[in-house]
Amino acid sequence: MPGPDLAPQVIDALRQADVSIAIAESLTAGLVCARLADVPGASDVLRGGVVAYATDLKHELLGVAADTLSRHGVVHPQVAAEMSRSVRVLLGADIGAATTGVAGPGPTDGHPAGTVFVAATARRGIQSHRTEIRALRLPGTRGQVRAASVDAVFALILELVQPDAARFPGSDPGR
Amino acid sequence: MPGPDLAPQVIDALRQADVSIAIAESLTAGLVCARLADVPGASDVLRGGVVAYATDLKHELLGVAADTLSRHGVVHPQVAAEMSRSVRVLLGADIGAATTGVAGPGPTDGHPAGTVFVAATARRGIQSHRTEIRALRLPGTRGQVRAASVDAVFALILELVQPDAARFPGSDPGR
Repeated sequence: MPGPDLAPQVIDALRQADVSIAIAESLTAGLVCARLADVPGASDVLRGGVVAYATDLKHELLGVAADTLSRHGVVHPQVAAEMSRSVRVLLGADIGAATTGVAGPGPTDGHPAGTVFVAATARRGIQSHRTEIRALRLPGTRGQVRAASVDAVFALILELVQPDAARFPGSDPGR
Repeated sequence: MPGPDLAPQVIDALRQADVSIAIAESLTAGLVCARLADVPGASDVLRGGVVAYATDLKHELLGVAADTLSRHGVVHPQVAAEMSRSVRVLLGADIGAATTGVAGPGPTDGHPAGTVFVAATARRGIQSHRTEIRALRLPGTRGQVRAASVDAVFALILELVQPDAARFPGSDPGR
């Protein structure tokens, strides 16, 4: 593993902020949820997730606009953004996060392996209901691309949550 | 890992039988989906899954009967059975599989750590639309219980699918 495991930090930040999370996963296929669930106390904040591996499920289950999918394909920042918004509402969470992209080894829809988009959306009242998106070009094998995608969405969740956590009395902004 | 990785066998058996799969996960929290997605060619048969980590999502998203949950709690064979049936329909797959139980370290709802139920349901036309359930008492740490639960649901899927695969011309029943 290239860096420290961010999952405990994410669970801790969510607990400090008293917000729940739901995850929509494509290329990571359940790894984000599983890594969060590994942390003791995860059930306080982890609602669950949807793995939309088949393209049509991104529309039918997660409500990504058919127009978005037909115009851009599944490897696109807009798809990640819509997945993060939908899973938040579908699972009744405060924060929704999402991953989509190409794990490899070969390209998909003309995008090279390692092309990944992660997104996170907070409900109104947390960070002004904003959606944040990150575009990544990740090196390595299928497994390495997946693992780095998990780390990237963890980092994005921390960016979204920690400023809020610091506003709450009792939290420690210096950590 | 205690035994051979069954994920490639599961993907191969599903491809041979030309059937798709969807997974509903509670204690494994996405690991079953992620392990299947690690196998090259998984996208031919893996539709996706739902991680219903919070109890209410088992009812609200997966449609497990409120009566089942209030009478038996979430650690019960009937819950695993209903999760496997619902996820199959919700994600439009031929086979639905599910995990529920106590990863530990402590007990949940009076059930000791390692109490796990896995289930798999085939659509009508595959194995007479049957649901199979296995009750497990798994030793070990939280991670070991989760890993063994993944292996158990893989073994159950193989039991459900392989007799059918052997009926198809071109498959090799002797493998």
